Amino acid sequence: MSLFNSATTWAQLKPFNNVNVGHQKSRFTSSIFSHPLKNNLPIPLILPKPYPHPSPVSSIPISSLHTIRASKTSFDFESYMLEKASEVNKALERFISLEEPSKVRESIRYSLLAGGKRIRPMLCLAACELVGGDDSKAMPAACAVEMIHTMSLMHDDLPCIDNSDMRRGKPTNHKEFGEPVALLAGDALLALAFEHVAGATRRVPAERVVRTIRELGRSCGCQGIPTGQIADLDYEGMSGEIGLQHMEYVHMRKTGALLEASVVSGAILGGADDEEIEKLRKFSRCIGLLFQVIDDILDITKSSEELGKTAGTDLVLDKSTYPKLIGIENSRESAQKLNGEAKEELAGFDPEKTLQLIALTDYITYRGN
Amino acid sequence: MSLFNSATTWAQLKPFNNVNVGHQKSRFTSSIFSHPLKNNLPIPLILPKPYPHPSPVSSIPISSLHTIRASKTSFDFESYMLEKASEVNKALERFISLEEPSKVRESIRYSLLAGGKRIRPMLCLAACELVGGDDSKAMPAACAVEMIHTMSLMHDDLPCIDNSDMRRGKPTNHKEFGEPVALLAGDALLALAFEHVAGATRRVPAERVVRTIRELGRSCGCQGIPTGQIADLDYEGMSGEIGLQHMEYVHMRKTGALLEASVVSGAILGGADDEEIEKLRKFSRCIGLLFQVIDDILDITKSSEELGKTAGTDLVLDKSTYPKLIGIENSRESAQKLNGEAKEELAGFDPEKTLQLIALTDYITYRGN
Repeated sequence: MSLFNSATTWAQLKPFNNVNVGHQKSRFTSSIFSHPLKNNLPIPLILPKPYPHPSPVSSIPISSLHTIRASKTSFDFESYMLEKASEVNKALERFISLEEPSKVRESIRYSLLAGGKRIRPMLCLAACELVGGDDSKAMPAACAVEMIHTMSLMHDDLPCIDNSDMRRGKPTNHKEFGEPVALLAGDALLALAFEHVAGATRRVPAERVVRTIRELGRSCGCQGIPTGQIADLDYEGMSGEIGLQHMEYVHMRKTGALLEASVVSGAILGGADDEEIEKLRKFSRCIGLLFQVIDDILDITKSSEELGKTAGTDLVLDKSTYPKLIGIENSRESAQKLNGEAKEELAGFDPEKTLQLIALTDYITYRGN
Repeated sequence: MSLFNSATTWAQLKPFNNVNVGHQKSRFTSSIFSHPLKNNLPIPLILPKPYPHPSPVSSIPISSLHTIRASKTSFDFESYMLEKASEVNKALERFISLEEPSKVRESIRYSLLAGGKRIRPMLCLAACELVGGDDSKAMPAACAVEMIHTMSLMHDDLPCIDNSDMRRGKPTNHKEFGEPVALLAGDALLALAFEHVAGATRRVPAERVVRTIRELGRSCGCQGIPTGQIADLDYEGMSGEIGLQHMEYVHMRKTGALLEASVVSGAILGGADDEEIEKLRKFSRCIGLLFQVIDDILDITKSSEELGKTAGTDLVLDKSTYPKLIGIENSRESAQKLNGEAKEELAGFDPEKTLQLIALTDYITYRGN
């Protein structure tokens, strides 16, 4: 029996809260949380309770997607994003120089410097600043999360996985450099991420650098991206509750794990205490699901040109997506709720310092690609 | 003009010492060292001077491949190898458990627990002990170098690179699990290596853990394995001095970089000072070339069954090898010389504590697969 179809409303999902249909349950239907990640990641998955009312922090009026005005301060998000992306790009460019030219290095530069949105590095830097650190402490980790993200895309695009032709508005890496180079340059890029954090982080106690590396490793190890990528290939014949469970299993790993590592690494490097780290971990898990809900919506509502990658692939592949399983309007509503939950986790921090993460949350929610 | 053919003797190579035929020169012909790695790795490449006479350490009589007797101590290498391999296997098994079953984890276990020789972990542990550390300090790093080694084999075996069917006496990973899983499990395994060192190393100052991670990252980043793997695919039409230069460029990265990281990581974690680390780095670079010379010899003198992998591939692919470029007898002679050079670097350490590294050097030199 399929529990959901495109006509099911968000409210209609609630009566299924206590229906146990498998070894794990979707956050969209479960109030008692049970998930394979539970025993392996530091804290349980995101909020099992019903969606909360927006917290006071999240009620800061947003006049547009680009400009957020709080009571006593003006925050120009567009300028902020441009400035941070530019700083990250410069740092990446410096690190992946062409001092010793090689095909591997050229291939890495091609994909890494192709102008991604740099959302993960920004989350890392913003989390660092939120807890009192300055950008320079987290910049190597910010670069590292972008490296890990880029290598996962390079490998995901390969013929044996997604066989994609376009990425970030250009031919995919293997289309430009061939499969062997795209494969092995991805490997090198993953190693560089760790080398960079270990070798370039300054003015941070070594214990925190080690802890950061552990978080980064976990995001792309057995509990992270690759396991999500593989599970994503096994989507056939799944619908209803099973489909939702599987989809969230995939997303928590394929997208969520690295977003979590981005935020948590920034917090660790910025000097956060354990309580702050755990709050920001919960924040990041809301962001992780939010990111994917929006990605699913964009995949069916935008063109390839607008996205900079092949649009409509989920439909072509008949993959489980939020719009397919709960309908597009419910997907939009759930995105709004996740947006509120994320902001609620920031409630205990200095409101002025939370502006960047709030703005990034809204950017992820309302972005056009 | 080809400078070498199979009839060229080692002695005949010496007159070419000062012939500059390119931007870099082979260690087999150059007395002034110039190499792209020079500015990027901590110290220059291995000994530029003429091959030294065997050091006092290397003159310890070797009664067999398995038993080495020094003046005051008896060292049973066979028992040592069995014991260390068993300890490493147990540690790997514990770390890559099946607590959260997934295809990625199964695929990793298939290749990682397939009974490799564990030479890299042994070098790591032996270097740690040489400088006064105990095994437990270096065990996570010892596991990590085996993980990195295994993932490089998994990717090297893929159809778009070497398209190999056999590895460690079994079907290659992609033959068993399919290309997507072999590819992404390799990625996960690389990340696990760093996660493991960061998360499991105990009783070592965090600064040394960070330094170790940097060494490990460098071994498989832009200056390490992937660049060697890609360069290894560009071997066509190379012979003579150019062929030797290219071959050594490949080997220093594809094989040498991780052997170096194995030894140096063990030394760092064991508490070595900078002078000891640099001596052991030089030792490891001799070992790196030695390892490859022997691999080349074995490829043409042993069967697939004896090697546990497809034999004769170098000949089939018409790749540059030491036997092809300088002849098999010269290759054997150069292996002996590298063996002596490696041991010379150990001369300044407590002779009793060097027995393990000396035995490993001899094992690498005289191994049958």
